[in-house]
Amino acid sequence: MSENVNRQVVLRSRPSGIPEAENFEIVQKPIPRIKAGMILVRNIYLSVEPAMRGWVGAAANYAEPVPIGGVMRSFATGRVEQSAHPDFRPGDIVTGMFGWQDYTLVDAESIQRKVDPSLPISTSLGVLGLNGLTAYFALLDVGQPRTDNTVAVSSAAGAVGSCVGQIAKIKGCRTVGITSSEEKVNLCLNEFGFDAAISYRRDDFSAVLGDYFKQGVDIYFDNTAGAISDAVLSHIAVGARIVVCGTASVASWDPPPLGPRVERNILVKRARMQGFLIFDYAHRYSEAWPVLSDWVRSGLLRYREEITQGIETAPSAIASLYRSENMGKRLIRIAAED
Amino acid sequence: MSENVNRQVVLRSRPSGIPEAENFEIVQKPIPRIKAGMILVRNIYLSVEPAMRGWVGAAANYAEPVPIGGVMRSFATGRVEQSAHPDFRPGDIVTGMFGWQDYTLVDAESIQRKVDPSLPISTSLGVLGLNGLTAYFALLDVGQPRTDNTVAVSSAAGAVGSCVGQIAKIKGCRTVGITSSEEKVNLCLNEFGFDAAISYRRDDFSAVLGDYFKQGVDIYFDNTAGAISDAVLSHIAVGARIVVCGTASVASWDPPPLGPRVERNILVKRARMQGFLIFDYAHRYSEAWPVLSDWVRSGLLRYREEITQGIETAPSAIASLYRSENMGKRLIRIAAED
Repeated sequence: MSENVNRQVVLRSRPSGIPEAENFEIVQKPIPRIKAGMILVRNIYLSVEPAMRGWVGAAANYAEPVPIGGVMRSFATGRVEQSAHPDFRPGDIVTGMFGWQDYTLVDAESIQRKVDPSLPISTSLGVLGLNGLTAYFALLDVGQPRTDNTVAVSSAAGAVGSCVGQIAKIKGCRTVGITSSEEKVNLCLNEFGFDAAISYRRDDFSAVLGDYFKQGVDIYFDNTAGAISDAVLSHIAVGARIVVCGTASVASWDPPPLGPRVERNILVKRARMQGFLIFDYAHRYSEAWPVLSDWVRSGLLRYREEITQGIETAPSAIASLYRSENMGKRLIRIAAED
Repeated sequence: MSENVNRQVVLRSRPSGIPEAENFEIVQKPIPRIKAGMILVRNIYLSVEPAMRGWVGAAANYAEPVPIGGVMRSFATGRVEQSAHPDFRPGDIVTGMFGWQDYTLVDAESIQRKVDPSLPISTSLGVLGLNGLTAYFALLDVGQPRTDNTVAVSSAAGAVGSCVGQIAKIKGCRTVGITSSEEKVNLCLNEFGFDAAISYRRDDFSAVLGDYFKQGVDIYFDNTAGAISDAVLSHIAVGARIVVCGTASVASWDPPPLGPRVERNILVKRARMQGFLIFDYAHRYSEAWPVLSDWVRSGLLRYREEITQGIETAPSAIASLYRSENMGKRLIRIAAED
């Protein structure tokens, strides 16, 4: 690649459901010039998140849609190239919502944090980034796990789900992972330490699911919604907590698809179903980082990354995530670490 | 009626949905004889509750089904006729789960409380009974109203809904009642002090509902589920609390009917949907009684009762409730107050 341009992945058209490669275009722009108070970041890793589907949709959401022609919104981690701000120096590793591009000129408030380079810096976008933070606050604050609770997790081998399962184990729970293939079942069991795991693609999924939940589901950490959730909800225990963290299995919400009504089950089980959005917890991230970092260092919290090379792999990355093709946190490396 | 028999309303057959008169039969049995430690109660008022549908259903529920041939489970208020327990004397007014029958022989633990006769004793089954307690704990504990919150209530003119609206007003909220007729709209506005009220039977119900919720719904107190809830849920505010207290608008839950999936809305709005069952709060009833009684005495908490005469009106009473025919707490008087 040329060192003199800033390649940007911009949104070309708005998908009705899951964004595909053709919804994006890679354009070349000049590298931004440093300005007073600003920091120029050379991005190294770009993140790929299921939430990006919502960010490019036209429907009302928790964030303004990425405008057509705008750089794709994304967390990224990079190196400070130039700094006109006293808190940052060239060489610092920083993370923030820098977008899918080579270079980002930001003010200090837009930098989420300086990354400690004693752990792999890619972790700042996964297990120590939005995914780990989501697992931490959604499970602990909304799920409120207690010792010996049974915790069911959908997308259990994913970047969030794998953290949820491990944090639940740290808190003394029994964990059951629900995932999309036998290969990922093995990953859940052997890499992420789930007590049990099952693929929802098994023909007998609904029929056998009850065998995993003899005492009922105390916490259902829902990353998928849809038919997977319907199956799990039929096994919730009295007082169950359902953490609605993602809706990955539903292709389109406009209009919302039909499913079995939940009110009677929620009532009879005195269950709580609650939506979670990590950005509501921004003021508390600094509580979680040291805890998560210690768990990663001690091996209690393991992670997998699947890193593709080059910004040209970005446009197709979200669709790939929704096809459940990845075996770990999906990242794109667009520059060398040093 | 004969003073020498105990008339009982027994469950003759199990309804698939709402229990009708033909599901019950009135039988005559001997009056139970007093025994050591027991209390014989002559029931005066019998209660009619939407929850009775669940109590007679075969489906798993929060309580064991009433057995075929068993006396219909019900709260009732009556006078102690004979007592072989030091805490109770003939003439005491007591309330408890005495069933649809003239006489009930109970132990002291089965008496919920002695009723203060300085307020009408029928209130022990409504505004100071299960309905008032439900409104109190479900709204305050689960709904967590804050000043200026907008509170939507379905079955707003009903025994629970009317209390919810008034308690929400006491807590400084703006209240919108949803009910089944223009007559009940007037009741909501003029008797129960709702800020606004609307009949869901209006043709333009879904279309105009948003006009009532310009700032969004902070608390939805759901007594109905179904299409009414779908309409309200499309207007919830960020951080909304949905108290699932009843499912009166859905005729049968076996199997659960289809409705629009809620997960995306719950997620995007970071809403909380939670089931409530009053019996979980039995250890806290004594907190609520003095507060509710004070509100009733001071006129802050008004109530309506619709009392039919004679135990022969019991078998058809539940179905009548579900046809929204009543204009207040539905009670059956089966003996004189004194």
